[in-house]
Amino acid sequence: MQNEFTERLGIEYPLIQAPMAGGVTTTELVVAVSDCGGLGMVGAGYLTPVQLREQIREIKKNTTKPFGVNLFVPTSIQVSENAIREANQLLKPHLDKFNLKVETVPTETEMEVEQFEEQLKVIMEERVPICSFTFELPTDEQVSLLKEHGVLLIGTATNVQEAILTEQRGMDMVVVQGTEAGGHRGTFLNDNQSLIGLMSLIPQVVDKVSIPVIAAGGIMDGRGMSASLCLGAVGIQMGTAFLTCKESGAADIHKKAIIQATDDDAVLTRSFSGKWARGLNNHFIKEMKKHENEWPNFPIQNRLTKALRQAATRENDKDFMSLWSGQSPTLAKRQTVKELILTTITETNAIMRL
Amino acid sequence: MQNEFTERLGIEYPLIQAPMAGGVTTTELVVAVSDCGGLGMVGAGYLTPVQLREQIREIKKNTTKPFGVNLFVPTSIQVSENAIREANQLLKPHLDKFNLKVETVPTETEMEVEQFEEQLKVIMEERVPICSFTFELPTDEQVSLLKEHGVLLIGTATNVQEAILTEQRGMDMVVVQGTEAGGHRGTFLNDNQSLIGLMSLIPQVVDKVSIPVIAAGGIMDGRGMSASLCLGAVGIQMGTAFLTCKESGAADIHKKAIIQATDDDAVLTRSFSGKWARGLNNHFIKEMKKHENEWPNFPIQNRLTKALRQAATRENDKDFMSLWSGQSPTLAKRQTVKELILTTITETNAIMRL
Repeated sequence: MQNEFTERLGIEYPLIQAPMAGGVTTTELVVAVSDCGGLGMVGAGYLTPVQLREQIREIKKNTTKPFGVNLFVPTSIQVSENAIREANQLLKPHLDKFNLKVETVPTETEMEVEQFEEQLKVIMEERVPICSFTFELPTDEQVSLLKEHGVLLIGTATNVQEAILTEQRGMDMVVVQGTEAGGHRGTFLNDNQSLIGLMSLIPQVVDKVSIPVIAAGGIMDGRGMSASLCLGAVGIQMGTAFLTCKESGAADIHKKAIIQATDDDAVLTRSFSGKWARGLNNHFIKEMKKHENEWPNFPIQNRLTKALRQAATRENDKDFMSLWSGQSPTLAKRQTVKELILTTITETNAIMRL
Repeated sequence: MQNEFTERLGIEYPLIQAPMAGGVTTTELVVAVSDCGGLGMVGAGYLTPVQLREQIREIKKNTTKPFGVNLFVPTSIQVSENAIREANQLLKPHLDKFNLKVETVPTETEMEVEQFEEQLKVIMEERVPICSFTFELPTDEQVSLLKEHGVLLIGTATNVQEAILTEQRGMDMVVVQGTEAGGHRGTFLNDNQSLIGLMSLIPQVVDKVSIPVIAAGGIMDGRGMSASLCLGAVGIQMGTAFLTCKESGAADIHKKAIIQATDDDAVLTRSFSGKWARGLNNHFIKEMKKHENEWPNFPIQNRLTKALRQAATRENDKDFMSLWSGQSPTLAKRQTVKELILTTITETNAIMRL
């Protein structure tokens, strides 16, 4: 199944493992995907430059196949001390339950902006072949520098206008994220206004950009892969399908929750991080729903709930974990990466009569 | 392109013209679709039994091909006089603009319930071959009676659970409506909770029911049709694509607005009818957004805004019209039904190598 996409990436199948941040994309997962002919990706949004360099080196030790890294592009924001105090007040009853203190955190994002520059340096120094970006686009200068270092660049868009900007910024390819997708929305022009299903999003973007389009959101098997190719995508990115795989670093209780969920359990929430994201509905999301528009923006709110999410994960309390999931949980399976990739490709070939 | 679906419906292509209510599905449109090998459908939700009988007879005079009728299944509701007064107060400034008085309307839905029984009688007496339902399912008794009269029955579902109930109620087929779809949401279990993209919805439903699944939402051409078939649907239903056709009865200003719109212009609103529906964002939707959860339920709110929508349409004022549209307006074209159907089928055959 070779095409423009596989040739430029140097991989066998046009299939990317979504760069899920927060510990899901272990070296074991990334290596297994790349070794099976797909593109393994490190979700490095929350990794320090040191951690990122370590994982890149570990991956290189374990595979000679291409792999990629995804970075969150930070935005410089500033919130008031008061906004943080108010958010902490709302969170306090839940923090108390886990014997946690409210967090005192910086009111701006200087740290993230500096860290992003350092992460880019690591990407170039370690000669990572592919880098994708979410939440914004890198600057013209950053794009030029990365390209000089031979890095293939992939942006993330949730509507036609964002895809056009992604191409104009010099990205080599664009991932279009449908409303079906689990985890954070990649929307950067209009927060939460772009909840477009892939059936609509793919062909409309394909008609308006000339760079290759990669489909992401709700794709779990050969049916979703072949449908994406029919709509004009050159390849797919799968998240939830890899999250429940044996090799993923997601908590077991998270994998189990997805496998037991139904199609409309995955809801949008802003309460965990200050940015809209899709995950399985639970006690925290329901309780905080009425405050959803009051939280400080990402990543400030994310800092405020970090200890809570970590404590809940430690204690296997899924009522306070961010159980990111796309809209197709009933198609998720406990399987190996190899089983997932091979059945997906075999099914796609059969459906498309390739 | 014959399959289980075309054989049972007696049509050439597995392609249904969505039953858009409110004057879009003129006899000219329905006849053109059926004559071209698809299934023309009358959106009869707002038609009186007399109007429905007239249109059925008119269609039969103009084509010998199968066609269908869609009905809204009414729910018995009761709202307070006060709720109507409050809604009217919010609408008053806009009604004033068009020199309209606030409406005094019944606080319950007895009329709709009675009308539905009469519509069913017309369907059986006039031997309409296919009848689809939205907003709820007909009762067991109604289903039995319709089947005795040889009517093929199609339900509408927006999630797996609704699709399962649709099969259990004895429907012969189910239309699954993705979040991409324009017009009213067919959700009947959890209002507004089922905004599932077709990439997720089709395969999950296909795995859980044994009746044929028809995909609806955002499908505009052979790319969407072939993708739907890959995902496991036996056929498709297209709305917006037919709405902008020459033969449709939609106001010209509505057609034009769709063709000029972009992918994220089609938003969800409850302000026009009291039921969530997708249409192009405009002044009325924006102004009323903050009251969206206060309106009386469908069809009460629909009664209150009826004169306003009609006056706006008469005066070509798209700021107060319900400009229903799916999420793919950039793929809409001014074309004939024949052009739309033939290019869709040709493209589907090419993509699927049929």
